[in-house]
Amino acid sequence: MKVGIVGATGYAGQELVRLIIQHPQAELAWVTSNTYKGERFDKCYGSFKNIYEENCIEQKIDELSNDVDVIFLATPHGLSSSLVNDVLLKKVIIIDLSADFRLKDALDYKEWYGENHPNTSLLKEAVYGLCEINRDQIKGKRLIANPGCYPTASTLGLYPLLKEKLIDTKSIIIDAKSGVSGAGRSPKLATHFDEVNESTKAYSVGVHRHTAEIEEQLGYASNDKAFINFTPHLIPMHRGILATAYANLNDNYDYDTIKGIYNKYYANEKFVRLLDENVYPETRWVKGSNYCDINFKIDKRTNRIIIVSAIDNLIKGAAGQAVQNMNILYNLDEDTGLNQVPVFM
Amino acid sequence: MKVGIVGATGYAGQELVRLIIQHPQAELAWVTSNTYKGERFDKCYGSFKNIYEENCIEQKIDELSNDVDVIFLATPHGLSSSLVNDVLLKKVIIIDLSADFRLKDALDYKEWYGENHPNTSLLKEAVYGLCEINRDQIKGKRLIANPGCYPTASTLGLYPLLKEKLIDTKSIIIDAKSGVSGAGRSPKLATHFDEVNESTKAYSVGVHRHTAEIEEQLGYASNDKAFINFTPHLIPMHRGILATAYANLNDNYDYDTIKGIYNKYYANEKFVRLLDENVYPETRWVKGSNYCDINFKIDKRTNRIIIVSAIDNLIKGAAGQAVQNMNILYNLDEDTGLNQVPVFM
Amino acid sequence: MKVGIVGATGYAGQELVRLIIQHPQAELAWVTSNTYKGERFDKCYGSFKNIYEENCIEQKIDELSNDVDVIFLATPHGLSSSLVNDVLLKKVIIIDLSADFRLKDALDYKEWYGENHPNTSLLKEAVYGLCEINRDQIKGKRLIANPGCYPTASTLGLYPLLKEKLIDTKSIIIDAKSGVSGAGRSPKLATHFDEVNESTKAYSVGVHRHTAEIEEQLGYASNDKAFINFTPHLIPMHRGILATAYANLNDNYDYDTIKGIYNKYYANEKFVRLLDENVYPETRWVKGSNYCDINFKIDKRTNRIIIVSAIDNLIKGAAGQAVQNMNILYNLDEDTGLNQVPVFM
Amino acid sequence: MKVGIVGATGYAGQELVRLIIQHPQAELAWVTSNTYKGERFDKCYGSFKNIYEENCIEQKIDELSNDVDVIFLATPHGLSSSLVNDVLLKKVIIIDLSADFRLKDALDYKEWYGENHPNTSLLKEAVYGLCEINRDQIKGKRLIANPGCYPTASTLGLYPLLKEKLIDTKSIIIDAKSGVSGAGRSPKLATHFDEVNESTKAYSVGVHRHTAEIEEQLGYASNDKAFINFTPHLIPMHRGILATAYANLNDNYDYDTIKGIYNKYYANEKFVRLLDENVYPETRWVKGSNYCDINFKIDKRTNRIIIVSAIDNLIKGAAGQAVQNMNILYNLDEDTGLNQVPVFM
Repeated sequence: MKVGIVGATGYAGQELVRLIIQHPQAELAWVTSNTYKGERFDKCYGSFKNIYEENCIEQKIDELSNDVDVIFLATPHGLSSSLVNDVLLKKVIIIDLSADFRLKDALDYKEWYGENHPNTSLLKEAVYGLCEINRDQIKGKRLIANPGCYPTASTLGLYPLLKEKLIDTKSIIIDAKSGVSGAGRSPKLATHFDEVNESTKAYSVGVHRHTAEIEEQLGYASNDKAFINFTPHLIPMHRGILATAYANLNDNYDYDTIKGIYNKYYANEKFVRLLDENVYPETRWVKGSNYCDINFKIDKRTNRIIIVSAIDNLIKGAAGQAVQNMNILYNLDEDTGLNQVPVFM
Repeated sequence: MKVGIVGATGYAGQELVRLIIQHPQAELAWVTSNTYKGERFDKCYGSFKNIYEENCIEQKIDELSNDVDVIFLATPHGLSSSLVNDVLLKKVIIIDLSADFRLKDALDYKEWYGENHPNTSLLKEAVYGLCEINRDQIKGKRLIANPGCYPTASTLGLYPLLKEKLIDTKSIIIDAKSGVSGAGRSPKLATHFDEVNESTKAYSVGVHRHTAEIEEQLGYASNDKAFINFTPHLIPMHRGILATAYANLNDNYDYDTIKGIYNKYYANEKFVRLLDENVYPETRWVKGSNYCDINFKIDKRTNRIIIVSAIDNLIKGAAGQAVQNMNILYNLDEDTGLNQVPVFM
Repeated sequence: MKVGIVGATGYAGQELVRLIIQHPQAELAWVTSNTYKGERFDKCYGSFKNIYEENCIEQKIDELSNDVDVIFLATPHGLSSSLVNDVLLKKVIIIDLSADFRLKDALDYKEWYGENHPNTSLLKEAVYGLCEINRDQIKGKRLIANPGCYPTASTLGLYPLLKEKLIDTKSIIIDAKSGVSGAGRSPKLATHFDEVNESTKAYSVGVHRHTAEIEEQLGYASNDKAFINFTPHLIPMHRGILATAYANLNDNYDYDTIKGIYNKYYANEKFVRLLDENVYPETRWVKGSNYCDINFKIDKRTNRIIIVSAIDNLIKGAAGQAVQNMNILYNLDEDTGLNQVPVFM
Repeated sequence: MKVGIVGATGYAGQELVRLIIQHPQAELAWVTSNTYKGERFDKCYGSFKNIYEENCIEQKIDELSNDVDVIFLATPHGLSSSLVNDVLLKKVIIIDLSADFRLKDALDYKEWYGENHPNTSLLKEAVYGLCEINRDQIKGKRLIANPGCYPTASTLGLYPLLKEKLIDTKSIIIDAKSGVSGAGRSPKLATHFDEVNESTKAYSVGVHRHTAEIEEQLGYASNDKAFINFTPHLIPMHRGILATAYANLNDNYDYDTIKGIYNKYYANEKFVRLLDENVYPETRWVKGSNYCDINFKIDKRTNRIIIVSAIDNLIKGAAGQAVQNMNILYNLDEDTGLNQVPVFM
């Protein structure tokens, strides 16, 4: 299939370029960029020297959509939804990496994004592309809302427990840690080297927008309204999300029971790795790959379970999962073009 | 006063050397080191070139105690308690940076440290040197158990809420993040540069020894047995602890009420800084200083409170608080020798 | 003395604030900032919470100069020289951290800075404040051109060899490595965390402006025109400059001869530390201090000498040396307010 | 072909495992490890979970050589040469990543390694596997001495200039910067996180063993004995070598002439990328790939040329070039299994 990437010079965008170039079934037709329009892609990212030296072109999606089968939108929230419409969706598959089509309820969007949803008519057509969970709904769709990085790590970790009603929906606390690349490539004081390195902090305490996305997905899993505490932290590293989740167990479950449940959901999943007892995920072990590593600990003293999950925020949390969605839509093996061994440092 | 430091070539030890050298009322009489016995201190730490070039001597505490008024023990747990005895305490004040005298109950020690407490007879004499909380009990004592780094950050953050019974003792979850220096100077794979940098992980999930120390202190604050979840994480940075704590509020408190409570306990504390609303602690702002920065967020949706606190693990979490304890014992201003402005990078 | 700081919210500026606050003879009267005019200083740098909470005021130097004895200009090149004039210099001492008054020859300025020097009339009044070398000329002056970071490390390392004519002036190559803070606090892509961390590069190859400054100083030392190669590199760390210099020896000197020469010039210098044979400077050992560490190696095979020197770019390379200059001007001990022990991590 | 890896749990070893697993023509038959003998490979490197879970076996090379066509030795110097002999070479191709067979002259080995060469009889059979330079000699050989990381970056950068006699052989100075992974995985103080991060230093000044290797290769290129200054520096990052080389030009060459020479040698090389004028290599742009990026600057003022080259030390500087050598030996496209796009962060 022929592929176009809108917003290719952001961090998720360039990961898409990297993955699509190495994808055996895909061909990269064009890339667009607002910031670097008219410049050679390898001038924006020296890594692509001799590899991908096409110019970044202007984003004229209607015209450009004639040349491709799939368009990835690696654009800021608010922009994606203004680009997509029924006519476009007749021509191409849209895989949107922004937040615009992730929340089903436009009111949630307004509450957390502080503005009216710009394109409510398409919310029903969109499917939330968390591949391991929604694989069946994804097939045949034209508009994929690619999940956020924090929601991917958090939801994959908690899903089996909620689906099987092992934990109290109202007790969930997610304390997440992210590398800096999640904040994008636009220079700002908050991501200036000397303001970030050798420090850590919580941010958006109580108000991070991914809270709504996670709650919606956890709600589907549990058939119950979830209210969670979600606190993201910034870690002085490039890539990786580590989500540490806490929840009250509904009963006195032992290790084997819980392990069995995780196996039930994930033993056959290529991209979910359940670690051995007492081995906990580290972001380095998934770096550069589409894996989500998961493990848990039952704390008998408090009858809580602690679930730790790790992803590469730019891959399983963005570009990789987007490609995985494309593979599902085209009935390819899900790991086509995604079987890179993690590069741990 | 004359001061000796046992274990001066560990990271906490060298911070003690740095602080004592700059302390206007203290004189550094000797430093000992097992690893670098007989070597010049500035050969172990080039920073001390031209500043402190004495030899590290052998640890013969009985003899050495004749020359000093205060001995800091920057030694591994298990060793400190074997060095201290009644005769020694008659001669000198001991400020112990290890965990040996922190837990009042020897059974707790056995449970969490996996061995019998080596010196139970002195447990009663020791006072837990969390200065802001135990100032009055510290005065006049001869044996100070200097608090652990995680317990310092965690307890200072939660103390006012527990003392005033604003939160549910059974609901407390502490998710903590530490720089690598907390693991000490002995080379091991887990702290090898290439195994640590550009990654983050949880460790000792459910079994970290500081859990017992925190629970004991929270118990004193609340007059109630506390069972908590405590999960430490390793962050690729030198210094700093950030503790993010979560607890259920006992009632529907508003911001001003909680802020008032924190002010009641800390407004006059030199080393606790309560940040402005919506400004959260970052480890860089306390780096190189004895400060503990604290702030909180009330989450109305879940009626939980999130408390974030930050310290420099080697200073307020070790050497700085040890000096603060010495200042208390000698009726000096608590910030004598400790008024360094944080060096944020 | 009373001190004002223009441009206090840049990295060098905030180091000045930190040092002046801790200086026993200085009082900080005001700080100005273009970017943060009207904001509390501790809102720009959380490290100063409870320590220095004054507002950043507008830079109106004529008016402000009435209140102070010394003004530090931590301003970009081009701006400093437009602020200084004879009237001002009658009222206050100016210590300028910018490059404006460093080059004696306005033509050099034009060649390397690409524009006409904005204030040639004052070039004669300015003295180059490399304290260890120009101490005597500094005394009694009113306008100090505080040296650049690279020139400080480079010149201190090479000065004795040139003064004693031990090396070939035409053979000097300086390969320097700098932490990111040298690039300042304004966010830009080149200092964005994800573009800097985990990488190294040369920059301004053959055209860096400090080349002219170094050549001028080396020329004074050798009484000969120097042409050097100077290549700066960016290192993923906050602070520190390491300069590795190479030069052809004029004769077959042995270690002791060279060591003797270094001792002749620096043995009594508080802020220059000559390391033991085969121990080479590391930026961490001078971090947070005003020291310059130096050592050398004679390579018999090529009859070249390699000189390695290290400073903290924000201290000896900027704010610290500025304070040292102030101390000289006021006949204080040069280390007044500058005797911090390096904080190695 | 079937492949075995001796010393697979070192950093170069695990990169070999990663590359061989993804190589379309190679099959990994076994891996050995002294440190982790009997353990599952993915327990040593969590990145390989679900990907390569074989046990590390004992190194019994004679026996193991029956099962494979190629053996990679990712072993410390001294060990490799003791393992290889004529009988073994009859059975398998040996690609040795250690330094044992790199120097043709056993006296050089003795001088720089401080001991007698352990296996001089095979020195003649070995070919120095710098692929772009020695491609023709490599073909048909059985014993490849895979080049060191510093020599690869240095020699590729200087080779065309020496071959064409554009620079003075006696004037060469190489100032190199390396990530920490070059020091291997064995924990030691010098590579402990807190001793390395946020600092830089020169090491092995004047005595680094790669000096001999570089000089030998530069000598072949120039048909002249080369004496160079080579100074390695440690940079707080995982991967990457940046070599900044300086040399006197033999004449007054202009940019186009030199550029033409570089093009003559490298324009058709897949793994050498000549950058555009005034764009200099950064280690991040080659990270995770087998590329060597090169550029140069002519400094008219000194008539010197500055050459900057960058590689990933674990790939083009070790495992990647080893695979490239294997590809040459098997008449495969040189980039078979090596066409990963660099992962810039």
